[in-house]
Amino acid sequence: MKESAHPLSSNQRESGELEPRNIPTFEECFPSSEKRVTSIDFEDTTLDVPYRRINLTDGTHFDVYDTSGPQGFNPRSGVPRPRHNWVSKREARGDENYSQMHYARRGLITEEMAFVAQREGRTVEFVRDEIAAGRAVIPANRRHLELEPVIIGRNFRTKINANIGNSATHSSISEEVEKLQWAIMWGADTVMDLSTGHNIHETREWIMRNSPVPIGTVPLYQALEKVGGDPAKLSLETYIETLVEQAEQGVDYFTIHAGVRMQYIPLTVDRITGIVSRGGAIMAAWCLAHHKENFLYTGFERICEVMKKYDVTFSLGDGLRPGCLADANDEAQFGELRTLGELTKIAWEHDVQVMIEGPGHVSMDMIRENMDMELKECMDAPFYTLGPLVTDIAPGYDHITSGIGAAQIGWYGTAMLCYVTPKEHLGLPNRDDVKQGVITYMIAAHAADIAKGVPGARDRDDALSKARFEFRWEDQFNLSLDPVTAKSYHDETLPAEAAKTAHFCSMCGPKFCSMRITDDVRKAMEDKSVEFNAMGGEIYAEKVEV
Amino acid sequence: MKESAHPLSSNQRESGELEPRNIPTFEECFPSSEKRVTSIDFEDTTLDVPYRRINLTDGTHFDVYDTSGPQGFNPRSGVPRPRHNWVSKREARGDENYSQMHYARRGLITEEMAFVAQREGRTVEFVRDEIAAGRAVIPANRRHLELEPVIIGRNFRTKINANIGNSATHSSISEEVEKLQWAIMWGADTVMDLSTGHNIHETREWIMRNSPVPIGTVPLYQALEKVGGDPAKLSLETYIETLVEQAEQGVDYFTIHAGVRMQYIPLTVDRITGIVSRGGAIMAAWCLAHHKENFLYTGFERICEVMKKYDVTFSLGDGLRPGCLADANDEAQFGELRTLGELTKIAWEHDVQVMIEGPGHVSMDMIRENMDMELKECMDAPFYTLGPLVTDIAPGYDHITSGIGAAQIGWYGTAMLCYVTPKEHLGLPNRDDVKQGVITYMIAAHAADIAKGVPGARDRDDALSKARFEFRWEDQFNLSLDPVTAKSYHDETLPAEAAKTAHFCSMCGPKFCSMRITDDVRKAMEDKSVEFNAMGGEIYAEKVEV
Repeated sequence: MKESAHPLSSNQRESGELEPRNIPTFEECFPSSEKRVTSIDFEDTTLDVPYRRINLTDGTHFDVYDTSGPQGFNPRSGVPRPRHNWVSKREARGDENYSQMHYARRGLITEEMAFVAQREGRTVEFVRDEIAAGRAVIPANRRHLELEPVIIGRNFRTKINANIGNSATHSSISEEVEKLQWAIMWGADTVMDLSTGHNIHETREWIMRNSPVPIGTVPLYQALEKVGGDPAKLSLETYIETLVEQAEQGVDYFTIHAGVRMQYIPLTVDRITGIVSRGGAIMAAWCLAHHKENFLYTGFERICEVMKKYDVTFSLGDGLRPGCLADANDEAQFGELRTLGELTKIAWEHDVQVMIEGPGHVSMDMIRENMDMELKECMDAPFYTLGPLVTDIAPGYDHITSGIGAAQIGWYGTAMLCYVTPKEHLGLPNRDDVKQGVITYMIAAHAADIAKGVPGARDRDDALSKARFEFRWEDQFNLSLDPVTAKSYHDETLPAEAAKTAHFCSMCGPKFCSMRITDDVRKAMEDKSVEFNAMGGEIYAEKVEV
Repeated sequence: MKESAHPLSSNQRESGELEPRNIPTFEECFPSSEKRVTSIDFEDTTLDVPYRRINLTDGTHFDVYDTSGPQGFNPRSGVPRPRHNWVSKREARGDENYSQMHYARRGLITEEMAFVAQREGRTVEFVRDEIAAGRAVIPANRRHLELEPVIIGRNFRTKINANIGNSATHSSISEEVEKLQWAIMWGADTVMDLSTGHNIHETREWIMRNSPVPIGTVPLYQALEKVGGDPAKLSLETYIETLVEQAEQGVDYFTIHAGVRMQYIPLTVDRITGIVSRGGAIMAAWCLAHHKENFLYTGFERICEVMKKYDVTFSLGDGLRPGCLADANDEAQFGELRTLGELTKIAWEHDVQVMIEGPGHVSMDMIRENMDMELKECMDAPFYTLGPLVTDIAPGYDHITSGIGAAQIGWYGTAMLCYVTPKEHLGLPNRDDVKQGVITYMIAAHAADIAKGVPGARDRDDALSKARFEFRWEDQFNLSLDPVTAKSYHDETLPAEAAKTAHFCSMCGPKFCSMRITDDVRKAMEDKSVEFNAMGGEIYAEKVEV
């Protein structure tokens, strides 16, 4: 492990906007919860795997997956670096390919694999085999020492990603760090920094040093800034230079639009919304300006060399994804998907980890074809989809239009769902929008886990439902995804403390509470249990007058 | 047609709470929209079928289904009564069975059928045949003269219902009328008045006289009030008396929990949340107290007599629906569903229209079985489902957990989706919650219509997407489900008027707007069209270095 000045040293600091901002604390967001770790021995070290314990009023507790990361650190100093020793060891022995897939294929189990195995309740061997087969990835750049590793693959808990990042017109570095902290507080498993505005490098440095979750970027945005914003001036050299710069900072996965081949561009001309991916549009503009094949496609092997040196995971971009229902599942989209399959093979020859990005806007009846095609063309590489939005008519509510599609495609096997906020299509999301997006996607991912049968996925539902039926209001709130909101909705109409143990709420009032009546029914049935046993269907059927 | 004093005459008025309240006007909610009617000749009368026209900045317009009803009427006087003449005619000739199914089966086409045929863009014969077969219903009590008829069936546009109503602890009559107006403004096709608090009769009268949409109720709630709140004191006589009272007021459909048979009650004992339907719990309590079969089941034929006299539609209640994922698709639920099928046959022998209510809380993988079972057991009678919620862990966000399930079951064939608001499980929804619930369900129903292939369903998506791609921001807002919210989100970061024609938004800023770049790409392709035609896939494949 190279020693270096702390990455957030004084030259990274400028202007008042880097002051820590204010978001509610972990304790304020999750009353009655505590952060805990499971410590497991791994070779000569101990791995502290985090989880959140929800303490219940009946003396029991319920443990949940926790993405919130270390709390209470000043953003100036960043969060702790648990991977320091893990990586030092590999650097000391002179490894050249740091990819988790490379180790897995050689039969090795890394600290990262052991960590995620504990986190998911799976065996390390299962994790290793999924990584080796390319069915799962652990995005973990060896320069991202703050990382609490996460596994993304369809045989594990469905993950969600939150996009943050400034644009030329809005936001500041401290706002973006705050969005990161806020996104992971509510459950984001990874975060993409999609900054396209000022101070791209510095913004990213602050995000990396404060992030316990994998960070993804679209390096093309910074490469374009480097050439003054003119797509025609882009080159493979500038691009690779940008990759190295970002890889050195610790970015864990790169979206790379290498599948936007020239032959597909004419296929987008008759679409209603053409090319809606920023990266896709930029590469198409480059291809046209030079009348040459996409340099990310022709230079793909060189890109692989950078990826394996740091273990950056490919997120092969869907530059031709549909931007409206009318454009879904067309030849441009599926042509690009086949090319992504080709590129996956090449990446895997280098033992580089790969995810495949997916749409976009797709009506419900056309979603499954996307999943089936991805598994087939890309040989089971993890699918990472944006939404999909199942209708175009609800700007302002696209967290919901996309949450519907996300739940469905998650059920079918998508490994990670990229969130959409209420501001989609309209403007840059703020902190509240980030929370709305994350909670909606937590719902979609959890619903998908239950539907696809992830072991134990429904336990939390059952615990909450039991609390609900037993009128343990506080437990019902605390077991939910957003305890404070649930409590505040309840208290809006029945604020008195006594109402927290009342056997009704304002929805039905005391006389019409079905749960209270059901409880009476149960008691009555216990009293009359003998008669009831004799009752069974047949006896009463005779009395029916119909 | 009997003449009578206006139903909202002075004796209906009391206290200051009946003053008209303030909700934004139609014009404020839908800028650039106008209410219009298509006038069609029908026998000796003219039917004015409403729709909403959205005027676009490019000089074209887009017409959409409109539920908002007549605007600007003082709630004290109620809205106009277009059905006055339609019904008078039938009364004059001494009809005894007023059911739309009865007329349809005799080959007759009613004003209501002609009205909905125009509204849905279908032929009157198709409408009549669907009604005759029981696959669709037009809930239209002959006493509800304010009604603009609506058809509910899976071969038509998917409908949504909004529940309103006070409870013993909250709300007032004027608040409930306001919720009605607000629900239909945003697209509710029917409204259920689930009041269980004070002034049930009077609240309902105000709702009926101000409602252009079908109104449903659960008469059991009022019957229970009549016997002082003790389920054991209920009787068929009190119940029938309540049905007649409500039918006289014009209620269009009744939820009747006649399927909660004694034999199913013991099957709920091992559930996590027992019986969660208020009506189901009340009837179970009655059965237990008397140790007798449900009087709604044994007295079903007598109930049919009331229904056909007014043309009230059955909404056969799912009193044993699951209240959590763990209880879904169990023998209690499906046993009741089979009984509802039995009762449907009996109702149809009286030519009484029937809908079947469905769950509830069901994980995505178990939803389809509900739909398949309903169609089979209930012989294609329209399914009317609450949600279903696909996870239990998100109180405060159950409009979303249920919107996911609603979209899915709508796609599978559910005819009407009963909304769920963010306050579900927590308290009585207010006006804002009603809007959130309705918009979420408009999304679900529309997504379902596209997925199941309702003719023309995607046209609005295409129009909006075209406006989006052409940077016609105002048109994008106005074509959306909630124009003002979309506009306000946009203006939050770019309030200047010039930004409404700008070829970017704050999400990506000017340099990174994919749509702007795509437009450049298209122009470039036009310039180089000859070269591009020669380009096609094969030529460039040779140059690839991978």
